[in-house]
Amino acid sequence: MALSEFSLIQQYFAELTAKRDDVVLGIGDDCALLQCPPQHQLAVSIDTLVENVHFFADVDPHTLGHKSLAVSLSDLAAMGATPAWFTLALTLPEVNEAWLKQFSAGLAELAIQHNIQLVGGDTTRGPLCISIQVHGFVENNQAFRRDQANNGDLIFVSGTLGDAGAALKHRLDNWSPAELTADDWQYLQHRLELPTPQNNLVETLRGNTTAAIDISDGLLADLDHILSKSGNGAVIDLDKLPLSDALTKLPFEQASQLALNSGDDYELCFTVPATKVDNLAPIADKISCIGEITAEKALILRDQTGQQRHYDARKGYDHFGA
Amino acid sequence: MALSEFSLIQQYFAELTAKRDDVVLGIGDDCALLQCPPQHQLAVSIDTLVENVHFFADVDPHTLGHKSLAVSLSDLAAMGATPAWFTLALTLPEVNEAWLKQFSAGLAELAIQHNIQLVGGDTTRGPLCISIQVHGFVENNQAFRRDQANNGDLIFVSGTLGDAGAALKHRLDNWSPAELTADDWQYLQHRLELPTPQNNLVETLRGNTTAAIDISDGLLADLDHILSKSGNGAVIDLDKLPLSDALTKLPFEQASQLALNSGDDYELCFTVPATKVDNLAPIADKISCIGEITAEKALILRDQTGQQRHYDARKGYDHFGA
Repeated sequence: MALSEFSLIQQYFAELTAKRDDVVLGIGDDCALLQCPPQHQLAVSIDTLVENVHFFADVDPHTLGHKSLAVSLSDLAAMGATPAWFTLALTLPEVNEAWLKQFSAGLAELAIQHNIQLVGGDTTRGPLCISIQVHGFVENNQAFRRDQANNGDLIFVSGTLGDAGAALKHRLDNWSPAELTADDWQYLQHRLELPTPQNNLVETLRGNTTAAIDISDGLLADLDHILSKSGNGAVIDLDKLPLSDALTKLPFEQASQLALNSGDDYELCFTVPATKVDNLAPIADKISCIGEITAEKALILRDQTGQQRHYDARKGYDHFGA
Repeated sequence: MALSEFSLIQQYFAELTAKRDDVVLGIGDDCALLQCPPQHQLAVSIDTLVENVHFFADVDPHTLGHKSLAVSLSDLAAMGATPAWFTLALTLPEVNEAWLKQFSAGLAELAIQHNIQLVGGDTTRGPLCISIQVHGFVENNQAFRRDQANNGDLIFVSGTLGDAGAALKHRLDNWSPAELTADDWQYLQHRLELPTPQNNLVETLRGNTTAAIDISDGLLADLDHILSKSGNGAVIDLDKLPLSDALTKLPFEQASQLALNSGDDYELCFTVPATKVDNLAPIADKISCIGEITAEKALILRDQTGQQRHYDARKGYDHFGA
């Protein structure tokens, strides 16, 4: 069935996402017109997902719709911003109505949860490629930047780490350790395909965190961005890495490698001055303290015997890396 | 040469575009942080260019960089917005330094001209695909929308029409009428590959135009958006269509078909109440009055003998059309 490009976004997406009063003019003109609140900064981030790079060609379109928006919502969470609007540039090999319905439904469910409205889009014909730009607000000078972690700050992460990486390794390398059951694999695949952006932590973190980043490339690679921008180092206690029940079944060396180096978890990593840790009580069950910022510019991993090793964090996942 | 994805945007783009005071935090964090001016609305638009759909695989990367930003600046012009910031999602089959240098130089030249700053980006590996989202400002209630043309308003277009379409037809269909010289083809190709967004007209149009759109899909297709949103019709005088010297050499029927139906010119089409036409004097040499908005909901073409024909504007270029 041939469908006009003009109506694709309108037909499949426009009515599904949140409705906000600050959208003066939505989809259907040369630009959307949006009203920014006073005393706030606009936070924007764009992410692209490409078939066979960021997702498998056989992925369920409903989960793909979810993930496409989730990874961008995660950037807003990492910045301490409240979601407001997004745009969608969708390149499709063909107009497949069943696919579009499922993809848009997955996207819209998450959009409504986070009160974020689709305000513009572009659809073109070509190899499947999804670019989403999100916009959010953050009160002036309240953003969680990467460059303000201080010596002595404690390092926290949300959730558990390495789950998405385990699922990816299972799929890519036929890696299938005997310890893991079918239920474990289902859980891990869910973590890979349906990541939960941690925007619900933001309110509690405001005023209490000095730096933050979301873990998309791997804990060490992402923490390293904080360290290089803030000009300091860190000690991570390996035995404090939060692991899921599934990963806990694996040999510790294997599980911790996944937790340290694999991406796609979309958990938050953030730093908190020791004096403010008590303020995190409302989210204490969702976060783990895994180490400390140090003045020495090195990233050191410490095991439970106290043994330390330096780590080159530039080994995280990197699409154009060597 | 392998290059880290993290540094691609930083290395090739970050330093080249405009520098603006309202960018609190640019490239290099989870989000950019931007300061919106009070009493203004934010105008945003996203456009994607895909290889072999929007440009030929052998296009000069410098001109491609120009065009990628030009088509989005054109949307800001059509909305009456002043350019401010943009983001770039670039999907590349490989890291080709020569290509990146030329592409970014073409993009940056235009960005500096229009004082628009790159504030974020994402680079991924895949089939060549360029998504640019632009952000601009427009004073509250001063935007040029599509839905406010009134019966009796005069219809104007900027520049000349059909040039890009002629170049495209030449390339795609080996169409090569004897009337056109090598210089003509060079001019026409330049119009296709290096469109000039009409942001310089915006200041004069402010307060004087009731509706506007940029001509990306063809005059009739784009004017039809104004008519359907505003709930009225139009009469277009075929002999008033502005044609370049090159197109004037062609049989009139051929030239006017190009001017009416071919896209990619990125000129503006806008409506002006008769009482305000005199205010357009500063740009009089850059625009042409081609017709009038009517109460009757039809798009009518009138030739110099007064003969009229109805037109179905839904025949403009449409990527997913039948």
